[in-house]
Amino acid sequence: MNAKLFAEWLGTALLLAIVIGSGIMGERLAGGNVALALLANTLATVCGLYVLIEIFAPVSGAHFNPAVSLVMAVRGELPRSLLPAYVLAQLFGAVCGAWIAHAMFDMSILQWSGKLRTGTGQWIAEAIATAGLILVILRAPAGRASSMVAAYIGAAYWFTASTSFANPAAVFGRMLSDSFAGIAPASTGPFIAAELAGAALGLYAHKLLKGRNAADKASRLASETRSGL
Amino acid sequence: MNAKLFAEWLGTALLLAIVIGSGIMGERLAGGNVALALLANTLATVCGLYVLIEIFAPVSGAHFNPAVSLVMAVRGELPRSLLPAYVLAQLFGAVCGAWIAHAMFDMSILQWSGKLRTGTGQWIAEAIATAGLILVILRAPAGRASSMVAAYIGAAYWFTASTSFANPAAVFGRMLSDSFAGIAPASTGPFIAAELAGAALGLYAHKLLKGRNAADKASRLASETRSGL
Amino acid sequence: MNAKLFAEWLGTALLLAIVIGSGIMGERLAGGNVALALLANTLATVCGLYVLIEIFAPVSGAHFNPAVSLVMAVRGELPRSLLPAYVLAQLFGAVCGAWIAHAMFDMSILQWSGKLRTGTGQWIAEAIATAGLILVILRAPAGRASSMVAAYIGAAYWFTASTSFANPAAVFGRMLSDSFAGIAPASTGPFIAAELAGAALGLYAHKLLKGRNAADKASRLASETRSGL
Amino acid sequence: MNAKLFAEWLGTALLLAIVIGSGIMGERLAGGNVALALLANTLATVCGLYVLIEIFAPVSGAHFNPAVSLVMAVRGELPRSLLPAYVLAQLFGAVCGAWIAHAMFDMSILQWSGKLRTGTGQWIAEAIATAGLILVILRAPAGRASSMVAAYIGAAYWFTASTSFANPAAVFGRMLSDSFAGIAPASTGPFIAAELAGAALGLYAHKLLKGRNAADKASRLASETRSGL
Repeated sequence: MNAKLFAEWLGTALLLAIVIGSGIMGERLAGGNVALALLANTLATVCGLYVLIEIFAPVSGAHFNPAVSLVMAVRGELPRSLLPAYVLAQLFGAVCGAWIAHAMFDMSILQWSGKLRTGTGQWIAEAIATAGLILVILRAPAGRASSMVAAYIGAAYWFTASTSFANPAAVFGRMLSDSFAGIAPASTGPFIAAELAGAALGLYAHKLLKGRNAADKASRLASETRSGL
Repeated sequence: MNAKLFAEWLGTALLLAIVIGSGIMGERLAGGNVALALLANTLATVCGLYVLIEIFAPVSGAHFNPAVSLVMAVRGELPRSLLPAYVLAQLFGAVCGAWIAHAMFDMSILQWSGKLRTGTGQWIAEAIATAGLILVILRAPAGRASSMVAAYIGAAYWFTASTSFANPAAVFGRMLSDSFAGIAPASTGPFIAAELAGAALGLYAHKLLKGRNAADKASRLASETRSGL
Repeated sequence: MNAKLFAEWLGTALLLAIVIGSGIMGERLAGGNVALALLANTLATVCGLYVLIEIFAPVSGAHFNPAVSLVMAVRGELPRSLLPAYVLAQLFGAVCGAWIAHAMFDMSILQWSGKLRTGTGQWIAEAIATAGLILVILRAPAGRASSMVAAYIGAAYWFTASTSFANPAAVFGRMLSDSFAGIAPASTGPFIAAELAGAALGLYAHKLLKGRNAADKASRLASETRSGL
Repeated sequence: MNAKLFAEWLGTALLLAIVIGSGIMGERLAGGNVALALLANTLATVCGLYVLIEIFAPVSGAHFNPAVSLVMAVRGELPRSLLPAYVLAQLFGAVCGAWIAHAMFDMSILQWSGKLRTGTGQWIAEAIATAGLILVILRAPAGRASSMVAAYIGAAYWFTASTSFANPAAVFGRMLSDSFAGIAPASTGPFIAAELAGAALGLYAHKLLKGRNAADKASRLASETRSGL
């Protein structure tokens, strides 16, 4: 076994345990107030993501997300030969995370979610959520990716209609939990498709900004060179 | 099209999608408790602003706000010839952001807000909110503008009676959303006027602090020079 | 007028406007749930303190608090001749802050609080709150004072029975506001006395830690010197 | 008395005063809504931990936790001869912290908690919570331990079924408080056992990641050396 894959597996497992576990706790304590449950879910996810990215980024890049790994492979930042193993480690981690949450909260380990999440609005939301996530990851300055990804997801839990899964592995793990954070199997296909489309959109927006930026820099350099003659 | 204008457009669109979207989500989930809805709206805006400023500041300065661009043009930090294009990009971005939020939440795209926001208290609040924002932007140490502007708006959502729009483009976009964060067209004029007055006040407070500060520094330098003779 | 005094005046005014204003807003929106109102009050104070300290520390040290200025004068970090002017600027700022909050929320400007805050528990709490604040200020590493003071007050709003005023100028300004954050004039004397006692306690704890620490360092240096012979 | 032990005593006392005090305040103000009380408890703990670790880490390492001190002794980062004194200082600090909280809130000083916390789920949760804490402490980059430990505990209050004590000294202090954060004496044994097992698990996970990581680094260095021939 490889250290990178161990890190992707463990990090994704902990991420899903945090997302699903805090959803269960939030719903149990909130007395029916969904806003309070989602606030607790958000707080735990933001804090947890910041920590997990700091811990695992030096080992594996801390993707925890097949859409992110795919983008990294496309950009040549992840060797393409590693992509299938990364995705498998993430999917298996997501399953383990859901099961860990169930074990902690004395629920039966094996479950399917019954929560339908469907409709054009939700799909647009997932695409935008994932596009934004890719943009944040690709443009974060050194040392700020952890706080920026965490903060971005904190915002996206609330501003997108889907509460921003933005991660096919998260969809996979949440499908196995009949709780606050769950998603019914029938709803997962369009969610994952929307996320992949959003990842492509985010990559494109990054290139637009970068290209123009680079062009600006080139023309500034040129004019500085000229003025230096 | 210019990279700076693309960044101002996209950043303002995402900012308004965050402000309006999280307002809609907060109101839907909060079961009538306005404090909970505003807490969610605040959390999303603080997290989102931090991320958007980090992402777009290297490209365009990340103004997303005609009052900020105006101050920067007055100070010579934004070429005056770019000011009209910046403001247009921000206003168009604000409109797109409102529409994106509506699309995600399955609401009709075209709306006018019916929420009247008026009275001397609200106008004083908008002036103070914008003065504070300008002071924060002009005095933030390098690398801290993103967290300071985000934290400032988080405080201002609660300590000002108007929940701190502090941004004529935000007023424009919110006018087009009949939701939690909206503002009726009839209320927009005095809000924008108060914001511009506040921007001038913030610029003046900055000069007072800077002038005196600079004077201190000058006299200290003088005395150090003297003592060095 | 002096830049330092202008900064202490403006910073304390904004601090009190934030504390009192967010208390009013929180109470108005929370529908009778005091925990929600205090959560909003805490969020605004934490965010606001972080920003105010960053902005004003380079000018005046960002005390906004007579107990802090007193400790700094005792330690020789503030010229003793400046102490009375600092305290006056802070008290006058606190009054202005309360009045700004009332103006924004369409309340009558001149008020006295009717909220009694009394009893041994509250006085112990104020002493501990202020001792902790002094310890935080004196031991914060460079560049972290703003986030540490803000975080400390965020904790102290909840873990002390008095919600942690920890600041005689804040007591003075809150006395003039018959709102969520107010304190009745009859309750102010023991609060301020407890805060000054707490400041002395914090200074003493700092010296204990420092002295021992310095002693450790000295003996380590000695042994390193010896081993280097 | 030693500076390190004074720091461990004072830091653990303040930590428990924060955890227990904010639990009391949260429960008193939340009007029966447990989610709100735990949100307040979380906010205060996160803010307080960040500050306490920053203040005391340069003196004693800021363990405040016998499980952490044990791991540090095993790794040779804490002289083994100091371990018993560290643990005693932490336990005594925890008792003092509970009593300080009771004094502030006008409760009788001496209490036993009546809150049973038991069951396999809770024990799994404590083991996972402590494993994660150890992993965070051992892998945090320089200067980030304070914010990472604080954020981790913020997440763990919500994603673990036990609300994450993760600290035998905290168990000991909370046992002495019949309040929101308390734990009945009969429940403490399995909690502490689970925490120690979790600490061992965290240490093992760290070694797995480190070993592989180091191996990667070694082979990369080797190939770089080769390619440099």
